[in-house]
Order: sequence, then structure tokens, then C-alpha cells
Amino acid sequence: MRDKQLVVDDIPAPTPKPGQILVRTLACGICGSDLHALQHGDLMVEMSQQGGPAPEMEMMRPHIMDLSRDVVMGHEYVAEVVELGENAGNSKVGDVVVSVPMTFDETGIYPIGYSNEYPGGYGEIMALSDMFALRVPNGLDPQHAALTEPMAVGVHAVNKSNITAGEAAVVLGCGPVGLAVISDLNRKGIEPIIAADFSTKRRELAKVLGAHEVVDPRVEPAVDAWRRVDSRNATRNLVIYEAVGVPGMLDAAFAAAPRNARILVVGVCMQPDTIRPMLAIGRELTVQFVLGYDPLEFADTLRAIAEGELVATPMITGHVDSDGVPGAFKDLGDPEAHAKILIDPRSAATTPAPPAAATPEPAS
Amino acid sequence: MRDKQLVVDDIPAPTPKPGQILVRTLACGICGSDLHALQHGDLMVEMSQQGGPAPEMEMMRPHIMDLSRDVVMGHEYVAEVVELGENAGNSKVGDVVVSVPMTFDETGIYPIGYSNEYPGGYGEIMALSDMFALRVPNGLDPQHAALTEPMAVGVHAVNKSNITAGEAAVVLGCGPVGLAVISDLNRKGIEPIIAADFSTKRRELAKVLGAHEVVDPRVEPAVDAWRRVDSRNATRNLVIYEAVGVPGMLDAAFAAAPRNARILVVGVCMQPDTIRPMLAIGRELTVQFVLGYDPLEFADTLRAIAEGELVATPMITGHVDSDGVPGAFKDLGDPEAHAKILIDPRSAATTPAPPAAATPEPAS
Repeated sequence: MRDKQLVVDDIPAPTPKPGQILVRTLACGICGSDLHALQHGDLMVEMSQQGGPAPEMEMMRPHIMDLSRDVVMGHEYVAEVVELGENAGNSKVGDVVVSVPMTFDETGIYPIGYSNEYPGGYGEIMALSDMFALRVPNGLDPQHAALTEPMAVGVHAVNKSNITAGEAAVVLGCGPVGLAVISDLNRKGIEPIIAADFSTKRRELAKVLGAHEVVDPRVEPAVDAWRRVDSRNATRNLVIYEAVGVPGMLDAAFAAAPRNARILVVGVCMQPDTIRPMLAIGRELTVQFVLGYDPLEFADTLRAIAEGELVATPMITGHVDSDGVPGAFKDLGDPEAHAKILIDPRSAATTPAPPAAATPEPAS
Repeated sequence: MRDKQLVVDDIPAPTPKPGQILVRTLACGICGSDLHALQHGDLMVEMSQQGGPAPEMEMMRPHIMDLSRDVVMGHEYVAEVVELGENAGNSKVGDVVVSVPMTFDETGIYPIGYSNEYPGGYGEIMALSDMFALRVPNGLDPQHAALTEPMAVGVHAVNKSNITAGEAAVVLGCGPVGLAVISDLNRKGIEPIIAADFSTKRRELAKVLGAHEVVDPRVEPAVDAWRRVDSRNATRNLVIYEAVGVPGMLDAAFAAAPRNARILVVGVCMQPDTIRPMLAIGRELTVQFVLGYDPLEFADTLRAIAEGELVATPMITGHVDSDGVPGAFKDLGDPEAHAKILIDPRSAATTPAPPAAATPEPAS
């Protein structure tokens, strides 16, 4: 990402500092946040400053990217270890690993994929923290391991909601985050799971990943569908997962929610939003805002994918090489076409640009 | 309340229906909601329709007052039983009782104090549900028992917050609701309790009721004060009780809150409100909207006041008779002057208007 454009270019490879490992990317998912960063990077930087840790945690605040400099995005990666830095005793050369997209050195903490210092998985080579690297279990296709990060977001949201057997779930929005929530709800035996999305394709994916009922909210609002499906249990608790993240969704959830419902906000709405507090007061609603996951949830997610507990792979709808990334960003705008596209940066390396092609965006 | 005015007038006394008792009001507190109802009754009616029970609970929806007809307000009452209706076997004539401000008959459920059918405690005579009447324990001044209702609001908010020993509390706003929260936090041994209010008088009351530190938010924001007071425990959880209920308070609480804070919204903001979701997402805040109390909490509150566990009586800052109510409504606008004013509707009866005084608002 250079001057708000996607550019394929050669840049110096990172060198592993003490405690780091050098890895070669095998695959990296394109996240909705990446699309957002390309269009509204300024807002993202501003918001991450506002929404960051409280003052007493200031030293834990990650370095925020400077948009006037290059950023190699990509935080949903799987990679092969090619070199060990000093004191990197956890990993071995040849290991296939995933990690939480965060690294640190003597100068502070850096988010991999939104940093000027540490390139992300859209590039061929990354420096990761050895202590965060998790070996992908034998037998798991590395491409599927690349889904660990987006699936962990769903696992975390479901964990934070404390949903238990006997409670019902409504999931608003079936993009990758909503789908990850559905898959984890299904793993935890929650029934019924009602999912809503405008897109036929995404509703189909929701079914495959474990939703018991899917609706087009223009035809039937999701909470109405829950009442229809679950009418014998009208007094049980409902947890609503808001996975859309645009203004108005929260207030609409307030208006639809039954008494004592919990609303998990896992969609990231970057704009100011208007709510009618009385709707929430009258029904004593709880709204829980969540973000990311913790390292244990990340590790549990990798294990659950490997053991087939979390159904994730149907989410992969496309593959591109480095040159295909700008096209993939466009394609992801159409929910009928794609959910998750994986980048294989090596593919581009195997098809180098013709020697004579003096394009402004040379393939690496 | 007649045509948006407070009027003292004689109206027919209610007759107790089966399951009801007739009581004579001994004292009744003036609630901030009553002031609001007089000024913005239309909005209150509209909001109670929006924020009411979900469709499956429609039969439980209380009858809403019609503002074109008389409403005798008053839901913070203590009263003496003067007559038993049919099948009213819980109470005895002469009992001094309080009750949740709700009654029902064969036509439905009615909120006492905001109903055209059932007069509230601003009047001399009320019909209450026998099954909801709780006898005031021997030795408790009935005037103090009149604080059961507002104190129960605080008890409920604290219960819903699930605050536990080792967590800290910040209370925004020291009106009667904030004070009730402080008193119950103090009963539960929470420390420190930081309270914020613009008014010197109310900060003094907060101290008396159990706040360990009080601040004028124009001088020092409440969460900053918590950090100063509790700096040795910077990583413990904070619960913020928002007891002001005006637009902007929730977003300000988002901006000030530390990571993982829980925000209990006990202030009633009737207008739409704007929030910045990113502030709450970045810190994984939880927002819990609460309203009222349940009958068990109401009973527990009465017992706790009677046993001296809940410090409540310093909240009483004035007494008026029926004729003094309009003046009391004005006085309550000044937080330096008053927190809770009790009405004794009998006093007016002992000082009847002079026979010749043909006022449009005759004393009863």
C-alpha cells in the first residue's frame, strides 16, 4: 500500500532481530480491514489512536502505521520458517507456522500487516516473533491454517458472549466474521443459530458452516425468524452477534431485541453511530464490544480447525498471486462472488514480469 | 397532572377491586421522572411504547397513561392500610406498607403514579395490590421506608453489574439514583467508590452515603480521579455507573474508560444519543442498560434500610404538603438545595383552604 494504491514492488527483505524468525509466506487471506485500510487508512489510524489502550497501558500501544510510507499488508498468513534469529529457540527451519499478527523488538510493539517496519503476508518474506509462532499440525493443509486468524475473531466473540447451551443465537451479517461466529456457535452446540445476509451466496455459506436458518433481512428480519423457528422457547435468552459494522445496525438490533438480550458487537463500525438508549433501557439489553482474540484463543482455533471441529474451509472462494491482489480487492466487493480470497505471493515469483516490461508496478 | 400542570383538586377515591387494598398515603417521594413527566409526558409515553416488552410479552405491557386525562403521580410511597378488598388476605387494616408501584385487575396491569385509573402517592388514597404490599418493619420510620423505591433502583443496578470485591466503581452523577448506587456499593464493601457531580451539596451527600472520593468533573474527570486514588491497582476492573442520563454521557464514558470496563447505564436518556463505537471496540467495553428492579430486590431494599445496612435517610432534604408540590418541583431543579423531597398529602388535609377562597386549585 503506497499512496493509497496497491503496488507490487521489490522492497528490502526484513532481517530477523533477536527473538524473531524469518519466514516465507505460503498463503495470506485478504481481510475486510485491508480493504478498509486502503480506502480509509487515515480514519483507521485516527481511530486506533482514540480506541487504543487506556493511559496506564500506554507502553503497550502498538506503533501505528505512517500512511506516507509503504505498508505491506496481510495479517492472515501461514508461512514456512527459513531462518532463525538470535535466541529463537521455539521454531525450527522448515516449520510451517501461523502466529498472532504482532511482533516486538527493542523499540516496541508492531502490528504485522499495518506497520511500516514489519511487512505482512502479502509479501514473500516476513519477520515474526519466535515465541508467537505456532506449528501447523501435521496433515492440515497450510491454506486452511491461513484461516486461523479470521476464525479466531469469531471464537473470541463467542467466548466473550458467554453463550451457553439453551440460549439461542442470531448472527447479523455473513461476511468472514459472521461466518466465523456461526462456525464456532455450531462447534459449541448452540441451537438454533439464525443468520441474516442480503447475499444468497453468503447465506448458503452460513448454512454450510452451521446456521440452522438463514434469512434475507429484506424479506424477514432475523429476530422475527428466530421467533418463528424457536416459538416453543420464546422465553429463552437470545444473543445477537452484530457482524456488519455500519451505522444504524446497533439501533436496529436494539429495536428488534427481546428482553435481556445480549448484543455482541463484532462488526467494526468506524463512524459515529446514533442509538436510542430507551430501546435498550426498556429491555435491559447488554451490549458487548469485542476486538481480536487472545493468544490462547488463537492457538485453540488452529487446533480446532486441524481437528475438524471448526468448519472453515468452505469460506475460501478464491486464490490469487501478487499481481492478482488489486483485482481480488475489487472482487471482494461483490458478496455473491467471494468470501475469503487467499494470496500466494510465491506464485508471482514463479511468473516474473517479462524483462522488457517497464511497468510502473513491476511484479516482484 | 392535568393539561401539563400540577393541580391540587378533589377527585373520587379509588375503590379496591378483588385482590386490592385501600391505603392512606403517609409519605411519597418526588422522583426526577415525575419532573420529566410533567415537562415531557408525550415523549415518556412514546418511549415507553418503543422500549416496552418484546412482542411475545405484549400481554404484560402496562396500560400507558393518557395525558389528556388526570394523572395522580407518585410511585415512591409508604401508606397505611385502611380497607381490604375481596381476597386480600396478605394485609391487615392498620399495616404500614410499601409496594412496587404496579397493580393489576381484570383489565390489565397499571403503573401506579403514571396511570389514569390508579392514583399514586401524591394523593391521599390509593388502591394497591395486596400481594405486592410489604409490611414496613417495626421501628422503621415510615418516612424512611418511602425511600425503598428509589433505593431499589440503585440496588438493582449494582446487582446487574455483578461487581465483586476487588473491582473499583465510578459513579457519574449524584442525584437520587447515583446516591442509591453509592449506598449499595458501600453496603457490598466495594472500594474505592469514586463519585462525580457538579454540585457541592450532592458531592457531600455522596460522601455521607459511602463514596471514598468525590470530584467536580469540571476540575477532575472521575476516571482520572480513580487512577489517582487507586494507582496501586491500575490493572483491576472498573465498573462505571452512568446515572446522569443526558446525551453525550455514554460517549464520554467510552472515551474515559479503561480496557474491559463495564458501563452500567442507570440514567435514563430519553433522546437519541451518538456514540463512537471504535472507542468501545478498542477497549472491549461492555454496556449494560438497566431499568427498575424486581420484587425480590425491592423487598431486600426495604429490609436493608430497616437494618441500617443501606444508608438512605440523608437523601431526604425536604418535606411539603400537597399545596407545596409545585414549589417542590421548582426547588428540585437546584441540586444545591435538594436531593429528595417527601410529600405528606395528609398535611394539606389538616390545613384546609379558607372557606371563602375560591381558588382554581382548591386544597383537598
